[in-house]
Order: sequence, then C-alpha cells, then structure tokens
Amino acid sequence: MPNPSTSMYDAMSTQRAVRRLRTDPIPPEVLERILEAGTWAPSGGNTQPWRVVVVREGARKQRIAELYQAQWAQYAALYRRGLSRLSGEALAKQERTLAAGDYLAGHFGAAPVLLVYCFNPQLMAITDSDLDRPSVVGGGSVYPAIQNTLLACVSEGIGCTLTTLLCREEAAMKEILAIPQDWYTCAVVPLGYPVGKGHGPITRRTVAQQCYAESFGESLVV
Amino acid sequence: MPNPSTSMYDAMSTQRAVRRLRTDPIPPEVLERILEAGTWAPSGGNTQPWRVVVVREGARKQRIAELYQAQWAQYAALYRRGLSRLSGEALAKQERTLAAGDYLAGHFGAAPVLLVYCFNPQLMAITDSDLDRPSVVGGGSVYPAIQNTLLACVSEGIGCTLTTLLCREEAAMKEILAIPQDWYTCAVVPLGYPVGKGHGPITRRTVAQQCYAESFGESLVV
Repeated sequence: MPNPSTSMYDAMSTQRAVRRLRTDPIPPEVLERILEAGTWAPSGGNTQPWRVVVVREGARKQRIAELYQAQWAQYAALYRRGLSRLSGEALAKQERTLAAGDYLAGHFGAAPVLLVYCFNPQLMAITDSDLDRPSVVGGGSVYPAIQNTLLACVSEGIGCTLTTLLCREEAAMKEILAIPQDWYTCAVVPLGYPVGKGHGPITRRTVAQQCYAESFGESLVV
Repeated sequence: MPNPSTSMYDAMSTQRAVRRLRTDPIPPEVLERILEAGTWAPSGGNTQPWRVVVVREGARKQRIAELYQAQWAQYAALYRRGLSRLSGEALAKQERTLAAGDYLAGHFGAAPVLLVYCFNPQLMAITDSDLDRPSVVGGGSVYPAIQNTLLACVSEGIGCTLTTLLCREEAAMKEILAIPQDWYTCAVVPLGYPVGKGHGPITRRTVAQQCYAESFGESLVV
C-alpha cells in the first residue's frame, strides 16, 4: 500500500529488487513524488550531472525491452554456469533470483514506466580518473539520486530494481532516446506495482561484516 | 534533534552538505543505526562490494586531515579562479560554500568520525568498462549504500558531506588504513553534530529541469 510517510529506516530495510511488475499505470502524483525525490540528492559541486528519460510509450519501451532481453540472455547463461558449485538452499535462492530476472527480461516492455538515467561526465569532477583501476567516482553524482527515487518507490509501494545491463547497448539506447553526444547512460529502472508481495525482507551482510575500526579488516566495536 | 522516525521525504528534502561539525562524540547506538542503514542498500548481484573503515583515533584522523587539506587547497584555488565571472548573490552563494569548505578542510581531523569507504572492483560487474567514456557503473554498487548512511545522518541530526578528493591520495590512504591491494577508496565522509543549523533547505534543479518524456530534452508532463 502506498504510504508516503513511511519511516526512512522501514523503507531502507525492505528495499528489495522487485522484478515482477504489473502493467497498471502509475498515478501521475506518485510518479511526480518519486522523480522529485531524485532531484533532492546531493552531487559533486551540486551540478546534478544526470537527467532521466521517462519512457511510457509502448513502441519505445518495446525497442528497449528487446535490447534488454538479449543482454539478459547472455548474462543469465554465464550466471547459470556459475551455479554448478552450489547446492541446497543456496542454489534454490540463486535459482529464484534467476527466475525473477527471466521474468523481468520477458516483461521488460510491459512495465508501465522505464526510467532511463543519463549523465554528462563534463559536469563531473572525477577525482579517480587517473588511477590504475576502474573509476567509480562519477557514479557518486548519479546513483545517490537513483537511490532516492528507489527508496521513494519503496515508500509508495512501487516495485523497482536498478539495472545496468543496457550500458552494453549504449549506442542503440542513445539512438532510441535521442541522447546527445556528450551524454551517456548509467541505469534503467523499470517501475510498476508488484505482482507479488513487492518490497519486504532482505538478505544483507551485517555491520560487523561491512564495517571496520581504524584499519581495514579490524573488528569494529561501535 | 535526532529523530529516527523522520519521514523519508523530509530527510531527503533537507539533505545539505554540512561542513561545520562539532567535536562531540557520536553515541554508539546512533553510529550503529547510521552504519546499518548503509548495509541495507542494494548492489549489483547483492555482492555489497564495499567496506567502510570507521576512523576515530586522533592521530589517524590527523594524518588523513593533512592529506585532505592539501588537496582542498589545490581544488579551492581552481574553484576561486572560476568565480571571476560571477557577481551579486550568485557570487556570495559560491563564496559561502567555499568558506564552509575551508572550514571543513581546516577541521577535518576534529570531526569525531571519518568514514572511509572502500570498494573491490573484482566483486563488480562493470557493464560500462569497455566504453569510450568515463566508467560510472561500479559506483552503482557503492554510492547507494553511502547515500543510505547520509540520509540516516540527516534523520539522526548528524552533519555529513560526501567527499571524494582523497581519491587523489589513494596510495597514502591505503597505507594509513592498511587497505589490501585489491581494494580501493571511493569516498570519505566526515560525521559530527552540526555547529550551525545543520541539514535544512536545499537548492536543487526541479523535476521539469531534470526529467524528460520519451526522448532526451522533451518536456515531461507527468
């Protein structure tokens, strides 16, 4: 049930990847709140170097869905091969995730809304661009905005999940959405009311597993 | 005032960069909640490819602060040169931000807690790593967790701001914090109760400015 006054900790602790979405439209006032939550996020130098294309037209969603399905098929095949060393509940859990991913890929264009996030690196100060490892800092000015929107979805009862597979089809995506040369894509988020229970219990590593004291690997006593 | 039940939209819409921090310690139960909020965030393949080193020891904070101050001095000098074309309120606003940045740099080691975020790219599927533009997708598995912690800070009345300047001193940071070879740094977040009003009104671009319909640049009518 939509509940815009959900406490923040409740929303965060129930943010699942919801991959089975109903086709019902999202009411305009709900979509507006979800999008506005994104605009509130901080960004380096407050440049807000992202834009989001809200895709609701059937034909356009379908073109994007076809690209997604092909990428998912490749990814899922690799993922399935990696499961051969698992068994029991661990295997069953991974298979449930894969089945939900298959469902999403098969129904990608049926989600009422696809949010396609774009960014412009010229508006970013990427402090790790010269290092000899993958750069991530540019993401620090776009993913907080996306996370705000995802949390807003949780609080509004809208299913959603952050996908990045379509970066592998960036040229085609830029053509479908008329994205200018100096803008690129960083995520596609399908939105819709959930088929099942939607957001709810999550499985995550604990504070003790993620957080250290004073130096890397040292147990934290808060 | 700490208020763990703050509505999510209230927290998001008042998330400022708070750069003037008191030296008072952060109560353990508050720190625990802030850190736990981060662990709840989604990540690609649920690998949670980040760790955070919680730095509270004075000498260690001081070494980090010295690196930050030097980087800030360089950055601020460039930033100040860029202000020559501004005047009036626009200039005054930028100068207030710079003054707050100067304050933060001068007091970096006096914040009761520095959160140093690390990531491991081997735990990430970076779908934009082969593109001919800066990669950001790795950030999609770390900055949502950091954003959760920052939002938790807002709701707890803790001042904070996401900094990435210290990526320019990654080798030194890795040595100070004993970060293993295959882990890297992506943000440092100083935490503390605010000297002034702390979180509050923000200046952001609107939904109309950030969101398009169907293709890039097309006005969105929600």
